[in-house]
Amino acid sequence: MISNSSLREMGNLLRSAESIVIFPHESPDGDALGSCAALCRALRNEGKDAWVLLDEEIRGYLEFMDTEYCTTDIDCVSMPDICICVDCSEENRFSGRAEKFREGKTKLCIDHHVTAGSFGDFYYIDGGEAATAQIIYKLLREMDIEIEKTIAESLYVGISTDTGSFRHSNTTAETHMIASQLFGCGIDHQKLVINLYNSVSYKQTRMESAILEKMELIADGKAAVSYVTSAMLEAESAELGDCEAVIDRLRDIKGVEIAAFLKEKNGAVKVSMRAKSYGRVDSIAVKYGGGGHVKAAGCTLDMPMDEALALIKSELEDYWNDI
Amino acid sequence: MISNSSLREMGNLLRSAESIVIFPHESPDGDALGSCAALCRALRNEGKDAWVLLDEEIRGYLEFMDTEYCTTDIDCVSMPDICICVDCSEENRFSGRAEKFREGKTKLCIDHHVTAGSFGDFYYIDGGEAATAQIIYKLLREMDIEIEKTIAESLYVGISTDTGSFRHSNTTAETHMIASQLFGCGIDHQKLVINLYNSVSYKQTRMESAILEKMELIADGKAAVSYVTSAMLEAESAELGDCEAVIDRLRDIKGVEIAAFLKEKNGAVKVSMRAKSYGRVDSIAVKYGGGGHVKAAGCTLDMPMDEALALIKSELEDYWNDI
Repeated sequence: MISNSSLREMGNLLRSAESIVIFPHESPDGDALGSCAALCRALRNEGKDAWVLLDEEIRGYLEFMDTEYCTTDIDCVSMPDICICVDCSEENRFSGRAEKFREGKTKLCIDHHVTAGSFGDFYYIDGGEAATAQIIYKLLREMDIEIEKTIAESLYVGISTDTGSFRHSNTTAETHMIASQLFGCGIDHQKLVINLYNSVSYKQTRMESAILEKMELIADGKAAVSYVTSAMLEAESAELGDCEAVIDRLRDIKGVEIAAFLKEKNGAVKVSMRAKSYGRVDSIAVKYGGGGHVKAAGCTLDMPMDEALALIKSELEDYWNDI
Repeated sequence: MISNSSLREMGNLLRSAESIVIFPHESPDGDALGSCAALCRALRNEGKDAWVLLDEEIRGYLEFMDTEYCTTDIDCVSMPDICICVDCSEENRFSGRAEKFREGKTKLCIDHHVTAGSFGDFYYIDGGEAATAQIIYKLLREMDIEIEKTIAESLYVGISTDTGSFRHSNTTAETHMIASQLFGCGIDHQKLVINLYNSVSYKQTRMESAILEKMELIADGKAAVSYVTSAMLEAESAELGDCEAVIDRLRDIKGVEIAAFLKEKNGAVKVSMRAKSYGRVDSIAVKYGGGGHVKAAGCTLDMPMDEALALIKSELEDYWNDI
């Protein structure tokens, strides 16, 4: 167990540094990028030489964010005073940049995932926070840094995406309190919402239609299963990434407790599973060499799609016979 | 223009009454039912003889709410001290119960729609509130009535549904502040979210798939059009009500500014249109004898589906040539 520092300690360390490089996890999502962008902007406003270091382009739906402080240039700062990983606390979540991270004279880590490694000097980990953006919000308050519009918008992106627009079970009274205060900082709420939620690609929508057309209810309607084949993707010139949201649509069906979505990839079948309330999907995933959480898990089956479908359907039927 | 009363006046009138009948609008949505249920429960907790009077069954997705104080019995209270319409302020929004409303010794009205009629004695109308439930929240605070769990859950249903889970442009800093305080009252947030958002019917999902399969982008991707025929509904034993959410999916496509959804009904075609940000759809609706708002409007075309589709597509192409 890592001994947590306080936000005051974190703030004092950042205040005393001249140059800071910020590390989000690979494939940064809204919370990783939003938290890093907000922190970077705030540190620059305080006169620091601060950068967010990435090893890839920013994903489509987050391109609208103000990211002029993001760089893929590993030499953006030589021998930084502080390297800080944000929304990730294991080196294998930013392995391509881990060597640069170790260059930092002081190494910090801020996260709301509780799977922290032991490579840093100071940690602030709080698994009770809905989003890392909530921690950054509190850190900036603690440092007495003004949360101006751009910072507030980045924090809002983090909180809104990691809570599924205030629907996920991680949402708390404090989440709404912080959101209220971000509105008070003058965020352009509609700009953010349109970019985050009303900008689904045409291909995604086409694929969703095709995949939902294949769905099947089993176990008396308590499970929904569907799949996508390489041929279905080719028909729409789409990629597996265009199908990511479908599993939520399966789970959102009334009466469905477990959703399973099967994706053909390189001759094997990747299985993603989600549970709604009382169901759990980790045991089926583990049985086939996969893993995950109680409510979200997956595995890879080395067999053709029709066999994989039959296997998962049978496992789901058995699941309700066993509980 | 109606002269608004204060919440204090409203509270004093309700306090001084013994019997109160509460009137939501027809086909009550989450805000109408949530606001009425919260007010009714609060008044009963204060020892009043209070009822929510409906003239129909509660819609499927709101059935989970605690509605033991809802009745369709027009004689639930004879000669009530107060009749109060909530989330509606025109008699034609509850015409089947209007006569009963007039029986009230004092007639009140609380709403966030600004289209108030002039049939009541006292009004509290505030179009700046995201939901009527926000007004009820403030009223109960003003009356110093404890907002216990059941009341808070009803208010949360109103706020969450009328703001589209905190995404619509009516959402404000105060909306989040109130949501935060409702969490503090002990709401079962996940129960509410699962019932409101994760309980889409299988038929709805099937219809969505079928309708999205028919969608077409026009005007260089700035408009999306799709349709449902009676034959498509029959194939899934579905009704038009199972297709209501599809128009949002069309509008949510990246680059789409206007979505049009055409529904075959009794040999004619009902057209619903939505705009995302800068677009407006009222002028096309008005041109064909319909109406609505800038961002949401509709009309009925007395022609076969193929002609209606061609007409709407042509109107949408023209729209961008004209602006």
